[in-house]
Amino acid sequence: MHAMSVDLFSNTLGNLSAILDKGFANAGSRKFDPGVLLASRLAPDMLPLTRQVQIACDVAKGSVARLAGQDPPRFEDNETSFEQLRARIAATIDYIRSIPASALEGSETRDIKVPAGERTLEFKGLEYLQRWAIPNVLFHVTTAYDILRHNGVELGKRDFLAGGSTS
Amino acid sequence: MHAMSVDLFSNTLGNLSAILDKGFANAGSRKFDPGVLLASRLAPDMLPLTRQVQIACDVAKGSVARLAGQDPPRFEDNETSFEQLRARIAATIDYIRSIPASALEGSETRDIKVPAGERTLEFKGLEYLQRWAIPNVLFHVTTAYDILRHNGVELGKRDFLAGGSTS
Repeated sequence: MHAMSVDLFSNTLGNLSAILDKGFANAGSRKFDPGVLLASRLAPDMLPLTRQVQIACDVAKGSVARLAGQDPPRFEDNETSFEQLRARIAATIDYIRSIPASALEGSETRDIKVPAGERTLEFKGLEYLQRWAIPNVLFHVTTAYDILRHNGVELGKRDFLAGGSTS
Repeated sequence: MHAMSVDLFSNTLGNLSAILDKGFANAGSRKFDPGVLLASRLAPDMLPLTRQVQIACDVAKGSVARLAGQDPPRFEDNETSFEQLRARIAATIDYIRSIPASALEGSETRDIKVPAGERTLEFKGLEYLQRWAIPNVLFHVTTAYDILRHNGVELGKRDFLAGGSTS
């Protein structure tokens, strides 16, 4: 459970931070306000880049906390720069890495309830991680990547999948 | 390992199939050739919808096969319709569900080598699933969703995260 939550999320959030760095650098080299990227969306009724990053962090910290039976720290949604988003990601990684594997032992069978609008979703811990938390975090990290790629930032799947040793 | 590969991938590929159904229906109601959606991309140097679906299937079947020490079935990349892509997804789900949990026992520590261009990536099974296979499958499923959303298909995160009981 720890490997598939804390390790997986820290890895993908670390990659997201490096992807954002490339977005920020790209705005500099093309000489436009980086805030344009932060406000970019793939559709008028989809969330912009800033919200994709905030939600990826919130789902990661919220799901690890739920599995460990803790209350996660709350972050204000007040980031207005790439620098502040990087700090939020770093704080999220610090928090989830503070949860030891022992705190997640047995969490496969923990009852988890997730408010979702007027509904409440009910899961056992394993199913929650598999069907909700992992796809949800990766959805927002991928969409952040897709927003930047759509706007001409030079990225490749290697940025998204970084990690693993090469030979 | 089985829960985080076979179960997770069948679930997300099943959701992808339903998402494609909504894309196809949307083309019908807006009276344009559904092939336009299949050829749509988020950037000129990104892959179109058809390839996103093919690769999501290939990574899912290839990674489960590698973890089980099997050779996966090969699919020709010749789909030209939503119907054919749905059939590929169904064949992928059938294949990965044919791998019993016992075939993946101990696969956490299996040595896995992945050719990646001129490099070879080396992983232990657990790290392979966590850092390569899961993010890779979800990357392509999310990008397929994002391509359809970008083109005005009515989808919500509920389509992406379907599954889990509600109350």
